[in-house]
Amino acid sequence: MRDSSRIRTVYAEIKKNLEKGIIPFWLENAQDKEYGGYYTNFAEDGNRKVMPEKYVNTQMRLMWWFSRLACIHPERQVYRDLAKWGLDFLLANFWDQQYGGWYWKTARDGKSPDDGKVVYGQSFAVYALSEYSLGTHDPRGLEYAVKTFDLLQKYCADTRWGGYYENLERDWSSSAPGFHAGDRKSLDTHMHLMEAFTALYSASREEIHRRKLAEIIDLVADRMIDVRAGCGLNQFDLAFRPIPAIAIRRTFNAERVGESPEKPTETTSFGHNVELVWLMDLALDVAGIQKDAYQPIFQALLNHACEEGIDWEYGGIYRDGLRGGKAIVLEKEFWQSTESLVGFLDGYEQFREERYLDAFLNIWYFVNAYMINHEVGEWRMLLSRDGKPIVTDLANEWKVSYHTGRAMLECERRLSNILKKA
Amino acid sequence: MRDSSRIRTVYAEIKKNLEKGIIPFWLENAQDKEYGGYYTNFAEDGNRKVMPEKYVNTQMRLMWWFSRLACIHPERQVYRDLAKWGLDFLLANFWDQQYGGWYWKTARDGKSPDDGKVVYGQSFAVYALSEYSLGTHDPRGLEYAVKTFDLLQKYCADTRWGGYYENLERDWSSSAPGFHAGDRKSLDTHMHLMEAFTALYSASREEIHRRKLAEIIDLVADRMIDVRAGCGLNQFDLAFRPIPAIAIRRTFNAERVGESPEKPTETTSFGHNVELVWLMDLALDVAGIQKDAYQPIFQALLNHACEEGIDWEYGGIYRDGLRGGKAIVLEKEFWQSTESLVGFLDGYEQFREERYLDAFLNIWYFVNAYMINHEVGEWRMLLSRDGKPIVTDLANEWKVSYHTGRAMLECERRLSNILKKA
Repeated sequence: MRDSSRIRTVYAEIKKNLEKGIIPFWLENAQDKEYGGYYTNFAEDGNRKVMPEKYVNTQMRLMWWFSRLACIHPERQVYRDLAKWGLDFLLANFWDQQYGGWYWKTARDGKSPDDGKVVYGQSFAVYALSEYSLGTHDPRGLEYAVKTFDLLQKYCADTRWGGYYENLERDWSSSAPGFHAGDRKSLDTHMHLMEAFTALYSASREEIHRRKLAEIIDLVADRMIDVRAGCGLNQFDLAFRPIPAIAIRRTFNAERVGESPEKPTETTSFGHNVELVWLMDLALDVAGIQKDAYQPIFQALLNHACEEGIDWEYGGIYRDGLRGGKAIVLEKEFWQSTESLVGFLDGYEQFREERYLDAFLNIWYFVNAYMINHEVGEWRMLLSRDGKPIVTDLANEWKVSYHTGRAMLECERRLSNILKKA
Repeated sequence: MRDSSRIRTVYAEIKKNLEKGIIPFWLENAQDKEYGGYYTNFAEDGNRKVMPEKYVNTQMRLMWWFSRLACIHPERQVYRDLAKWGLDFLLANFWDQQYGGWYWKTARDGKSPDDGKVVYGQSFAVYALSEYSLGTHDPRGLEYAVKTFDLLQKYCADTRWGGYYENLERDWSSSAPGFHAGDRKSLDTHMHLMEAFTALYSASREEIHRRKLAEIIDLVADRMIDVRAGCGLNQFDLAFRPIPAIAIRRTFNAERVGESPEKPTETTSFGHNVELVWLMDLALDVAGIQKDAYQPIFQALLNHACEEGIDWEYGGIYRDGLRGGKAIVLEKEFWQSTESLVGFLDGYEQFREERYLDAFLNIWYFVNAYMINHEVGEWRMLLSRDGKPIVTDLANEWKVSYHTGRAMLECERRLSNILKKA
């Protein structure tokens, strides 16, 4: 390896962001002591902002975070306590006693739920509950992970076309078509189901969880990726025919611009494509599936992101591009940055291609220089192409430590392995 | 209508076969008072033959039969008692207390199960338990129908390709490929799942049962029928690519010729194709789906069976033919005869095409002349093309009153409606 001293520096920077930044920040700030559950809205200075609502995604993601830390540091009781703190609130306020499954969001106090059953949200429940089970050994973790999995199989699996319906109402009836997207499937949700089943099978070792994981790996690889373009596709009809993407209710994209449909687009997210590489690589490992047949897909995704998604001039990774073509949204956003850091390292570990390591280092340079708020430790949400802050908040109903903290944990571990082999 | 006096005669003949034949025969003979459950093996003279085994299909089918009669004659307690007699035995001996679901078969005394989980068998459990619930109002009916349905969704639904895996072992792991057919799907099993979900939704009125019914109707119509040939296809790989049919373990075909694989074939069953018409027509009615789009399929199946499957010389319907071509197995078997009687009447009611009525009358002529054992009331199993007995037994581990009795009930009701409108 050319850059082992450079890698050693980056390793130290990442370790510092984790140990002096992200971990202590959430340890100090995550608990909503007034109402239970987790507080998710923080301004640039690390102080609380108003928090009107709690979302299942971010409540689950913080529960995942403390569970993950509990796995890594079983000697520290505080992580288990903080994970349980989240589960208690989620079970009391988000779990639907009548129909089963998890509500989409509630007011900060856990009341007035939006009781929709969004599969994206259910997937993070399965993910977090599985990790919770591994981190705490509290039997409620696997119990509710399996309950959620079973509900997904009964109410969301599509026995006509395969895959899963993604948007349902409280009683598990399909949501309306169009903006409510009862008639659409997406790479996003299916990728996160794959991630969730990976964690579930790791926790349960039940054969049925392995089977559903293998099915969704194969489905995503075969139907949801344009290998020649090196891009994940975005949205599909129920039969997995690709269709232009629209804004969808009960998603991050729709909610940040206001609850209204947008014009259909055919863009691809470089960060999402590279995220898919490492999540699928991990899924294959856990499922015990030979990965040779998948590696050309991984390389296609990584190569396209290298060629069109990385900003080799200013550093970092662009937000969105044309399928198989140029970047068109040149801002730099936190979650694409985190996931592509991990994905390019994963690609480097698999293929030993130097340009994947270059891409990783390029993104890290930009992140470390502009995106991380070093005074507080968490990351800014959105920057201009050249690193000027656009959205400086450090967390909100959609962003907690799942992307940033997980990426730093993953990168720390992977860099440590790379350095050992160097 | 040309033939109303002829219809009136046939109606009377059918009513007689039902009321003087099939109903009293099973009322007197079905109970296995020694071991519980139902006795299923009867010789030509109506006397018992040795019965080494009990099969989930025929135990469920007789429970269905008495439940159906209980629905039609709620004033007669005996039908409810006989249905419960079957359920008690099935719950005690066939229900898997550990993994859930129904074993494939047991010894006559209910012991030594073949504990395989065959979806064909599970489908008859759902079918019979749903009818049981309607006929008896015993809550165990719907309780176990729903349990079985839920297990099918969790362990048998294929989220990669849609549809259902059909052959599984006790713990719901897939059976081996090939003869054990863990890697195959079939029209037969999917059609009977459609039939089962039709009954389940009728009994439960739960939206999820309607949704799964609608999915399987669409799947069967779209992937499992060669409309241009007017034939159902037979076996498929997991991705629904048609493949030559082989004998499969734990099926009627394999078990009657001995447990061994046969040469792959590309035949079609006329009786099965016409059965599909009436079962799908009913399924669409129950699901509340507009049937215009399906009617060309129905007509294709009926027309091909009219042209190639009916023996216009000797009467009756042939056993098997080439896909889209001539009959090649010219014997006449009981179940194709029963189901095509109902299917052609259903076609006549839908389309008012006289040749469907002619086909019905032609089959009935043959059945009434040669197949029904009028002294005992049940039907012989297999005849030569010109009506000579080949297998004269009236019932066995695979044949009870599900085909014969149901067909007579269906034909009686349909002819009565036709006569009212004439």
